[in-house]
Amino acid sequence: MSIQKLSAEALGTGLLLISVVGSGIMAQNLSGDLIGLALLANAIATGCMLYAIITVLGPISGAHFNPAVTLAFLLRGRIPGTLALGYIAVQIGGGILGVWITHLMFDLPVLQSSATLHRTGGAQWIAESVATFGLLFVIFGGLRSRPEAVPTLVAVYITGAYWFTASTSFANPAVTIARGFTDTFAGIFPGHINGFVLVQIATVFVAHVALRRLFAPQRP
Amino acid sequence: MSIQKLSAEALGTGLLLISVVGSGIMAQNLSGDLIGLALLANAIATGCMLYAIITVLGPISGAHFNPAVTLAFLLRGRIPGTLALGYIAVQIGGGILGVWITHLMFDLPVLQSSATLHRTGGAQWIAESVATFGLLFVIFGGLRSRPEAVPTLVAVYITGAYWFTASTSFANPAVTIARGFTDTFAGIFPGHINGFVLVQIATVFVAHVALRRLFAPQRP
Amino acid sequence: MSIQKLSAEALGTGLLLISVVGSGIMAQNLSGDLIGLALLANAIATGCMLYAIITVLGPISGAHFNPAVTLAFLLRGRIPGTLALGYIAVQIGGGILGVWITHLMFDLPVLQSSATLHRTGGAQWIAESVATFGLLFVIFGGLRSRPEAVPTLVAVYITGAYWFTASTSFANPAVTIARGFTDTFAGIFPGHINGFVLVQIATVFVAHVALRRLFAPQRP
Amino acid sequence: MSIQKLSAEALGTGLLLISVVGSGIMAQNLSGDLIGLALLANAIATGCMLYAIITVLGPISGAHFNPAVTLAFLLRGRIPGTLALGYIAVQIGGGILGVWITHLMFDLPVLQSSATLHRTGGAQWIAESVATFGLLFVIFGGLRSRPEAVPTLVAVYITGAYWFTASTSFANPAVTIARGFTDTFAGIFPGHINGFVLVQIATVFVAHVALRRLFAPQRP
Repeated sequence: MSIQKLSAEALGTGLLLISVVGSGIMAQNLSGDLIGLALLANAIATGCMLYAIITVLGPISGAHFNPAVTLAFLLRGRIPGTLALGYIAVQIGGGILGVWITHLMFDLPVLQSSATLHRTGGAQWIAESVATFGLLFVIFGGLRSRPEAVPTLVAVYITGAYWFTASTSFANPAVTIARGFTDTFAGIFPGHINGFVLVQIATVFVAHVALRRLFAPQRP
Repeated sequence: MSIQKLSAEALGTGLLLISVVGSGIMAQNLSGDLIGLALLANAIATGCMLYAIITVLGPISGAHFNPAVTLAFLLRGRIPGTLALGYIAVQIGGGILGVWITHLMFDLPVLQSSATLHRTGGAQWIAESVATFGLLFVIFGGLRSRPEAVPTLVAVYITGAYWFTASTSFANPAVTIARGFTDTFAGIFPGHINGFVLVQIATVFVAHVALRRLFAPQRP
Repeated sequence: MSIQKLSAEALGTGLLLISVVGSGIMAQNLSGDLIGLALLANAIATGCMLYAIITVLGPISGAHFNPAVTLAFLLRGRIPGTLALGYIAVQIGGGILGVWITHLMFDLPVLQSSATLHRTGGAQWIAESVATFGLLFVIFGGLRSRPEAVPTLVAVYITGAYWFTASTSFANPAVTIARGFTDTFAGIFPGHINGFVLVQIATVFVAHVALRRLFAPQRP
Repeated sequence: MSIQKLSAEALGTGLLLISVVGSGIMAQNLSGDLIGLALLANAIATGCMLYAIITVLGPISGAHFNPAVTLAFLLRGRIPGTLALGYIAVQIGGGILGVWITHLMFDLPVLQSSATLHRTGGAQWIAESVATFGLLFVIFGGLRSRPEAVPTLVAVYITGAYWFTASTSFANPAVTIARGFTDTFAGIFPGHINGFVLVQIATVFVAHVALRRLFAPQRP
């Protein structure tokens, strides 16, 4: 009996239950006021953008937009180290610039610092670890099973993960750092950024080993 | 005049009306408070995850994640009996583990037992039967008409079925059992699990016969 | 300068504005209470089901599920008259059966008659005409430009049309008749069915002529 | 180290943060009342229609439906000047006609003039510039990377941009002008149309230069 097949069925069913039960808990926590609607809009808008930027820029740069993803490609030997460093630098810079342009669009002070304090602690870190693992799972699994579906996979995964992970799925050190620069709905208190980023990076190493086995070529 | 064509038109229009009228009733029942938003988030997040896990893991294990689906493949002789048993075991185990990880993410007690009492009785069982039949209909019909669309078919079917079936469409014995282990939005009272699972399994046998005829090769 | 190209640009931009302004008006009318959420769920669930049934049953029967569509195929000589009559009969029968099964699922009296009285009058009939024209436009235009996209086209068109047409887009005589049999969110007062069905059928003839010209083969 | 790759990573991550933070701010601004739901319906309905009309009419006219897009194609020498003028004229005419038909459907006075006064000022103009740049980015980037995905790209981009740009993303002079003719949810005060259209047109020239470099053929 194939260990690989059984692992796939266990993992898939586990992830399915995370999505069913997690999104239910998140939604229940948010009901009673209209923040649920805000999160739904947030999730849909982000998913839409992810589909667009990965489809359009994938053929140019690989469309990482995420130091955790760049690190994962580095571990697999698919990107040179110096280019990876460059990627990570411009991801962080581009992300912060994006936040500032957003503030300009909404007529808010450009320079801000988040005071959102609930994005820390063990449960949130477990959530970020699940979120990051799932993201690498759909990227590397998608590249293996159906590469042209990767933009859709990442988009729908993140749209769902806004709801089924307790942290609303940052899963990206550049996004985490940049979100420290806004005191709006999406912000994270700068002192809590380190915790998120460390968990995200640690999860890259765990996923590197685990996904290599899961996605190993199958014996006939 | 082709009986097969007429059956397809009758079944399709029947399912269309179930989706139109059923989702309207469900939405009306939920309006007045914000639980409707919770169900919408729940439905979208689950659909997103289903697309991801079926696309990624389909080439490895077939992406059943559901003992009812595994049983249906067994009846069609497409999976060996021992592997099917293994699948069912890890689906149930993986599902429960997924619930526990979710509780950890949301900082809730890991071990819980649902007190949600409305998921029982004849009407709910009819709903589970419709839900399970529809799921097998899209899986085996999709494999026949457009195999690469199966991840999308299952994802959108379940997203819709959250609304148009009165039971919010469990349609999966492993999911049903695992949802007994959470006292949150998605829970089901453990004493009501048997009823749901029995209906789901009985429907597999009915669908096996009915779909074989509907999806028989067409005469030219 | 090509009349065909200019017609396409005018029609497309017109439809775009209908979607932008119409959905805004509908949403504004519904805000203040939570019926908007009900319509959103209704629209998404119906779109999901349409994608599923057209993908799965398309290769068997053509997946009309709609006497207006069957009539349009008959006018184009693509279905024999007797089969078309059979289709229309089972579409109506299947639709009513679907409503009754839905009532069973939601533990409601099976036999009902709608008391929803606002689905009549000139404005509603214009809306039904726009809705039906748009549906035939995406079906025959999709068959011409990208046949494999037809399930998606119909699904997203109807999801949108729930919002941008004032009638929530019945666009289907079988659905209209069947919805007379439910006194829930989706119902229509039986005395108003005739008006809707007549407009839908009349629009089939108008669309037959107009779309033939719009979708004529292009000169090189 | 490739400037092109680094630019792509910076731009993509910047756009990602705009979507995450912008949609969060918009949603937060709208929460407390139910206008958020109206915008969500508006965004989804428009995205659905865009997918339909671009898929169906793309092979006939190129499916611009937008003088800014027609101008961008003119700058690239892909449409003759006289045809471009014709396109722009019928886009504006078709758009206004669409607004009038919508008023008929919803039983409102046909001739209206918007009194919505907040669509002006520097922040709104920055938002329109971002919105228009992003639209041209997905169109010309999509034509380069995956032409068959352009209908989906435009649809999901605009659905998201309703939320992540402060102006709800008009990004289209014909749509802007036509929306001056409705005093409903989607309206814009006629005196503010000029500002929007000027920004949209200026952005076409900026994007023409910037995207040419970004999407230049890559050296091997």
